[in-house]
Amino acid sequence: MDKIEQNFLHALQTVLGQPNPFVPLHEPEFMGNEWERVKDCLDSTFVSSIGKYVDHFEVMLAEYTGAKYAVALVNGTAALHIALLLAGVKPGDEVLIPALSFVATANAVSHCGAIPHFIDSEFETLGIDPFALNDYLNDFSLSSSEGLTNRFTGRRIAAVVPMHTYGHPVDMTSLLDVANRYHLPVVEDAAESLGSRYQGQHTGTFGRLGTLSFNGNKVITTGGGGAILTNDAELAQQAKHLTTTAKHPHRWEFFHDAVAWNYRLPNLNAALGCAQLEQLPDFLHRKRLLAQQYQEIYREMEGIDFVVEPANSQSNYWLNTLELRQPSFEMRDRLLTAANDAGYQCRPTWKLLHKLPMYADCPHAPLPVAEQLEASLINVPSSAKLAGAGI
Amino acid sequence: MDKIEQNFLHALQTVLGQPNPFVPLHEPEFMGNEWERVKDCLDSTFVSSIGKYVDHFEVMLAEYTGAKYAVALVNGTAALHIALLLAGVKPGDEVLIPALSFVATANAVSHCGAIPHFIDSEFETLGIDPFALNDYLNDFSLSSSEGLTNRFTGRRIAAVVPMHTYGHPVDMTSLLDVANRYHLPVVEDAAESLGSRYQGQHTGTFGRLGTLSFNGNKVITTGGGGAILTNDAELAQQAKHLTTTAKHPHRWEFFHDAVAWNYRLPNLNAALGCAQLEQLPDFLHRKRLLAQQYQEIYREMEGIDFVVEPANSQSNYWLNTLELRQPSFEMRDRLLTAANDAGYQCRPTWKLLHKLPMYADCPHAPLPVAEQLEASLINVPSSAKLAGAGI
Ligand SMILES: Cc1ncc(COP(=O)(O)O)c(C=O)c1O
Ligand SMILES: Cc1ncc(COP(=O)(O)O)c(C=O)c1O
Repeated sequence: MDKIEQNFLHALQTVLGQPNPFVPLHEPEFMGNEWERVKDCLDSTFVSSIGKYVDHFEVMLAEYTGAKYAVALVNGTAALHIALLLAGVKPGDEVLIPALSFVATANAVSHCGAIPHFIDSEFETLGIDPFALNDYLNDFSLSSSEGLTNRFTGRRIAAVVPMHTYGHPVDMTSLLDVANRYHLPVVEDAAESLGSRYQGQHTGTFGRLGTLSFNGNKVITTGGGGAILTNDAELAQQAKHLTTTAKHPHRWEFFHDAVAWNYRLPNLNAALGCAQLEQLPDFLHRKRLLAQQYQEIYREMEGIDFVVEPANSQSNYWLNTLELRQPSFEMRDRLLTAANDAGYQCRPTWKLLHKLPMYADCPHAPLPVAEQLEASLINVPSSAKLAGAGI
Repeated sequence: MDKIEQNFLHALQTVLGQPNPFVPLHEPEFMGNEWERVKDCLDSTFVSSIGKYVDHFEVMLAEYTGAKYAVALVNGTAALHIALLLAGVKPGDEVLIPALSFVATANAVSHCGAIPHFIDSEFETLGIDPFALNDYLNDFSLSSSEGLTNRFTGRRIAAVVPMHTYGHPVDMTSLLDVANRYHLPVVEDAAESLGSRYQGQHTGTFGRLGTLSFNGNKVITTGGGGAILTNDAELAQQAKHLTTTAKHPHRWEFFHDAVAWNYRLPNLNAALGCAQLEQLPDFLHRKRLLAQQYQEIYREMEGIDFVVEPANSQSNYWLNTLELRQPSFEMRDRLLTAANDAGYQCRPTWKLLHKLPMYADCPHAPLPVAEQLEASLINVPSSAKLAGAGI
């Protein structure tokens, strides 16, 4: 083992203590009212499509994020799919998304019958670089009465999807500037950033719609779950309608007025969500402590930086992230091997989306930053309960 | 109130007792190990995409139904969507489905980018009439080297979807005959028929793939849930792969090889499902008793028949169903009003799918039987716990 691997492992050990025998990347924690709420839900027998917990969870989400409306859904992929539809994405359109994202961002675009068009990231936020996007749009897009089109493919460009990577907010002021200049609707993929704020405002509430995920690996979990956030009453109503089979309310008649989905969050999962959301401030507090511990220990380290929250932002530090100063797949994989062998679950960032076989033929911008980030980012264990674990 | 309304109400009262204040159409029942299993799942912290309950539930489903493989999914709509994809349904294809079904059957076809083509039902099973289908195919289809096409629209006919209405099995021998004659893959929508058998074999296991639903109103519930059944190892593996983001297993790498979905059933919901499935034989036993009570009381009644399980079949009697001897929307709605006003939740059957605005332009066969059934079917309260309630 080289010096850098030894230092890297030693730092993990200092922050996290000994793995006994294994420290997962991110684990949920059920120390609040989870049992109580879930048991109450079972006892009520309303575990499915109707029940007070779904309503309650939606109100709590809206209050917490400051969005006017929240619609609870079956997961974050489903939420992004419907949010894109409601933003006007049509089959054959292109949707601008970061090349550096989880595959679900691209899949949701595909589920609309649209084509992802991959955009570069910036080092500070790990999210879409608004200035590079602006220059790129200037080069490859055409504005006409029908809207923005890709001058090479002739397809309409229907929306842009900033994703707040590992909880770090995108530079939304600049991104919204660019989107406004090109009349592009913004749909935020805030799957990873519940609890993250940009200039004090919650991520997912800047665009026309925003989406959250409550998968098991996220800051809070409902087992599986997601939500759409919006300030637009009409879009919120449409989101609810399209995700609940588009049925008109009637005592007995089955009248549905649109092709629609069963994307509702079951009441059982919402009950768990309510209990989890109650604890979010505490989770965030401890996650921030853990991030500070990582930051301190990696401050001194040669060759490896800790990714801190961007200026003007408060990150939820969903996944703590290290960055090799010299991007190198070989070094990255050596560190990953050492850490995982030692029982610390660590991961690289995602394979860039344009390198996956099903998205290889999709259009993409030059991606110099994303390419570097791909070879240099490493996620380290980040559960709230790890704060202070090494002491 | 007329004599028929009075008799109808009186019979409900005799079977169900007084509504105190309300008898729902179908309620779940959690009197077994539900809390134990769900609590164990919470305590394990594995509530989401991994965990023993999903595996366990799949094994239990396969054992119970006799299918070689079961893949647990987020709901019945998602299950049918993926089953149709795996049966080879492509955008622009037509898929034969009954006009008399819940809207989800048609929506799942739409989610493949395909077009539902509506087929008539028969009185005995309430499901697709194989003989009418055969004659209709003879008239409107063309067989060529590219497969079966609709001679009027020119579109490929990709599959046929028998749906086992309210738990009553379709005449599968005849249906399979027709499907084989025309080389049409069969995908069974068995959302309503867990526990129903045709000639001793479980519904959902006759076609290339079959699908179940565990929505809150079904025989057993997981909050929300569904499954794909198949005897084909390759299709089962594909179903799992496509519903779990098509990720290749690797210690840390994110490699996904197809546009895919997040349609997995959370472990939390699977835990509930395991406890529910343990009780299915008891639920079925009591549901059958309740059906016998309905059958007896309506045997004597003028103008109204009770729908009994078809020959050679064992129905789960998911929803008990009455049938007006003289189809009449007016009479149907008078009975529905009387029952619902009295606190007995009753429902008509679904509005025929070709009458819904989004499916109004889809092709359909002549639908004389479905049209009559639409004006004559009434579902009455059917929860297992209602057996003996009126005594
Ligand atoms: C960036 C991003 N988008 C979308 C999703 C999809 O959320 P879900 O897993 O709840 O479908 C996730 C999380 O898995 C994600 O990290
Ligand atoms: C005939 C039929 N098909 C499909 C479904 C869809 O199942 P789910 O509600 O679980 O999506 C249902 C039940 O709602 C159904 O009754």
